[in-house]
Amino acid sequence: MENQFPEEKFSTQYRNIPVSFVRSILNAIGQQKMISFAGGLPNPSLFPVGELAESTRAVMAAHGGTVLQYAGSMGYYPLREWIANRYSAKYGMSITPEMVLITNGSQQAIDVISKLFINPGDGVILEKPSYLGAIQAMSAYLPDFREVDLEEDGANLAQIEELFLDEDIKLMYAVTNAQNPSGISYSAEKRKDLAMLLRKYNQFLLEDDPYNEICFDGEFPAPVKKFAPDHVAWTGSFSKMVAPGLRNGWVVLPPALVPHFDKVKQATDLHPNNLTQYVLHHYLVHNDLDEHLQRIRTKYAGMAECMVEMLKRYLPDEVHITQPTGGMFIWLTLPEGLRADELIHRTMERGVIFVPGNSFYTKGQGSNHIRLNFTNAEPDDIQKGVAIMAEEMKKLLCAV
Amino acid sequence: MENQFPEEKFSTQYRNIPVSFVRSILNAIGQQKMISFAGGLPNPSLFPVGELAESTRAVMAAHGGTVLQYAGSMGYYPLREWIANRYSAKYGMSITPEMVLITNGSQQAIDVISKLFINPGDGVILEKPSYLGAIQAMSAYLPDFREVDLEEDGANLAQIEELFLDEDIKLMYAVTNAQNPSGISYSAEKRKDLAMLLRKYNQFLLEDDPYNEICFDGEFPAPVKKFAPDHVAWTGSFSKMVAPGLRNGWVVLPPALVPHFDKVKQATDLHPNNLTQYVLHHYLVHNDLDEHLQRIRTKYAGMAECMVEMLKRYLPDEVHITQPTGGMFIWLTLPEGLRADELIHRTMERGVIFVPGNSFYTKGQGSNHIRLNFTNAEPDDIQKGVAIMAEEMKKLLCAV
Repeated sequence: MENQFPEEKFSTQYRNIPVSFVRSILNAIGQQKMISFAGGLPNPSLFPVGELAESTRAVMAAHGGTVLQYAGSMGYYPLREWIANRYSAKYGMSITPEMVLITNGSQQAIDVISKLFINPGDGVILEKPSYLGAIQAMSAYLPDFREVDLEEDGANLAQIEELFLDEDIKLMYAVTNAQNPSGISYSAEKRKDLAMLLRKYNQFLLEDDPYNEICFDGEFPAPVKKFAPDHVAWTGSFSKMVAPGLRNGWVVLPPALVPHFDKVKQATDLHPNNLTQYVLHHYLVHNDLDEHLQRIRTKYAGMAECMVEMLKRYLPDEVHITQPTGGMFIWLTLPEGLRADELIHRTMERGVIFVPGNSFYTKGQGSNHIRLNFTNAEPDDIQKGVAIMAEEMKKLLCAV
Repeated sequence: MENQFPEEKFSTQYRNIPVSFVRSILNAIGQQKMISFAGGLPNPSLFPVGELAESTRAVMAAHGGTVLQYAGSMGYYPLREWIANRYSAKYGMSITPEMVLITNGSQQAIDVISKLFINPGDGVILEKPSYLGAIQAMSAYLPDFREVDLEEDGANLAQIEELFLDEDIKLMYAVTNAQNPSGISYSAEKRKDLAMLLRKYNQFLLEDDPYNEICFDGEFPAPVKKFAPDHVAWTGSFSKMVAPGLRNGWVVLPPALVPHFDKVKQATDLHPNNLTQYVLHHYLVHNDLDEHLQRIRTKYAGMAECMVEMLKRYLPDEVHITQPTGGMFIWLTLPEGLRADELIHRTMERGVIFVPGNSFYTKGQGSNHIRLNFTNAEPDDIQKGVAIMAEEMKKLLCAV
């Protein structure tokens, strides 16, 4: 077993998890300095470091013995209460703390829901493109992914209804706000219409919503959850609104689903991190979160604008740019004949990386797309990186 | 879907996860005050609250931006290095940081290894009794559990070899030090012999070792891992040696298994909590851990002795008491005709709870056993609780 582990030991479910392109590319470049539009990191200059340090001090002083002990698997009640209150008020919903469970980022909610619902071969509807982390988490439960088109205002409802009607569908997964990778948000109408379909066909949606608070222009419309509360698990995350290193997110569940979700979660890792839950709660009740969020939105909107401007200035006219209204990504559609997976080999040699679109599809499509992250590069690097991408695109287009 | 979630939505794997007796009993008693020997909590008076508060302050001051950002899925390298160095030195092993991955307690390592190895129907060897948390985590992957007897010096090797020879076994799971629930530790010889069997039959062991540092009388012998490094995943945990609320444990893997384990873990929840990893590392390098561990050992040894003394004083002579050499539990074997699941209904009414043995078996056995936790009750409560258990045992014995 020295260099290679005997493959026959591994489960079918494991073999089904796709390799992360981002990860393999990061391994390939090692410690080399790159202009990276590939990651999905919040900008660390916006982390409330001082405030969280103070919250950490206060929590350890007041609750040291409690936060260090084992705790409930559902999460710290006051934090669940804070989440319930904020989102009830924000969207006129009736969320109780009992419906809210704390998870290790919203990623863990995807794993738990998948374990709870998916038998091998079960139909799972994905947007095309979809979030890579969800594809990876769900793949471990051997679903039959069914993809529907993602349009400018959300997923294609006719295709969804056809699948609900004709196929054995267990679950739909969607990111309704500032989707990773496309940046697309569902229109208010489409949210209501999707909710109606869920109720009509008694189907279940995992509405993954980590970018809920990162809307450049005010607020995103109310979630699908509001219009079909018993048919939706709605996730949220502190990763983008406060800091990802604390690894705390949440899910709002139909009450009847709570004990089942909790049982799965408990079997996975007992309970969420107790210290960081207390710290987050202390931070949230002692600081002006909305002021903090406004700083993030203003900064990210500026960075997105800067990148869009550079893209328009340098890229060939045939490249379609999806203008983001929030979140952290810009989505490019390349003209016929230009393949993102060819392009990246050339830009990598010149020190620029991004994520080719096929990472976000389950059937090998998407090579004419590119995901760009705009929250972690300085304007000079954006200009330099986009210019290099443009030059290499033009060379490839000439060769077509 | 209002009160009950439609059962047909749930996966087969979910339905296979057994209910936790401890949890259902805790739900039943609600907020009622009980003398509890049922839990598995470290004694909070031993948490190094002041030291961890100082470490938290220092980490936030020096590395605030870094600890709050997304981080590597394998864990914080200096912490992995600290673990590799400590256990290499302790047991004369050659562990490198690259073999060590940080998990959410050792519980997550059980889930990840299970996802990586177990296909539905695969044979998994368990000790009889076995750790409930492992039974729950593994059950979600639909294994065929094969139980072997746990003797005073570890699992029955002849039974293991027979299974290795005759059956389609994918994995063995064992707690080799101060097992939960039995308190049993493997002898030095049995560790070597089990390692030999693993190598001979090319089998794989998950050696779960959360109580490694809680040996009352010096140190436990070297782990099975030492004698079959390529055939064992060896877990550890900071829950018992520092504090469980930080939710950080680790696993030492054969190098060839590392990228596979990491891929599964990443798909589950991206990466371990960054803040608490830094805090633990700072605490470990700035404090005298061995002095701290000595305080835990002395305290727990005293509490175990107190409980054993009470058990000997009050319980009927026919009850067999396993004297613990470490860890947190005492294991009782009841005489013929006395059932722990009947007993607990009577003691609960009188305010005393424990865990009946059948929680630790997969085929309904074990009702003549009781697990008692001794790390979280005061001497007065121990005396009172044991006396009540004894009275109810005697009543039941008279009725036999």
